[in-house]
Amino acid sequence: MNALLLIAHGSRIGASNDEVRTLAGRLREETLHKYDHVDCAFLELAEPSIPAAIEEAVAMGCERIRVLPYFLAAGNHVISDIPEIIAQKQVEHPGVKIDLRPYAGTAPGMVELLLSLL
Amino acid sequence: MNALLLIAHGSRIGASNDEVRTLAGRLREETLHKYDHVDCAFLELAEPSIPAAIEEAVAMGCERIRVLPYFLAAGNHVISDIPEIIAQKQVEHPGVKIDLRPYAGTAPGMVELLLSLL
Repeated sequence: MNALLLIAHGSRIGASNDEVRTLAGRLREETLHKYDHVDCAFLELAEPSIPAAIEEAVAMGCERIRVLPYFLAAGNHVISDIPEIIAQKQVEHPGVKIDLRPYAGTAPGMVELLLSLL
Repeated sequence: MNALLLIAHGSRIGASNDEVRTLAGRLREETLHKYDHVDCAFLELAEPSIPAAIEEAVAMGCERIRVLPYFLAAGNHVISDIPEIIAQKQVEHPGVKIDLRPYAGTAPGMVELLLSLL
């Protein structure tokens, strides 16, 4: 079984976190053929946490977990915090392949996406 | 004259801010026909600040300044901080039209952009 986790920063504003949940739901609909489980997780300020979401995916029997950081630039969260959490979970679950993907800001289509907002 | 300002959070990591500057440069190349001045500005931790970037555009003679928030979700920065800065600058420069666009996370193409990273 394959899982996809969309990782966001998390906000004190509930509606902001709900945006991420909605986006994860849209990703789920678009990847039904590829991922058995799609969810979001938050670095801080909202639930589930990244470790909790990984534990849930493992408990469901997922052997491959793709982690997609919903971040725009390579600040400390992207460079250090998220990789450290992933590395720790990988040590705890050596039989599971946890695959950290590039963060959203690296997507080649970002310029076109921004142009669509002008 | 028209200006476009890409507004990012700003980071203590210089390379992260440079990513935003590079992206603004790509936007500049793609919008030569539409904007006379394209730059980035940062809410905090990096230069130029949003007020400084607006002042520069005004000093160049820009009568219309489009502000595009490079943010993914509607947290406090998007809901309060940036609109307040823009509103203040609009009061200071009533002859300039400052147009705050939707933030990046609202772009309809976001799901496809994320799928491109998997």
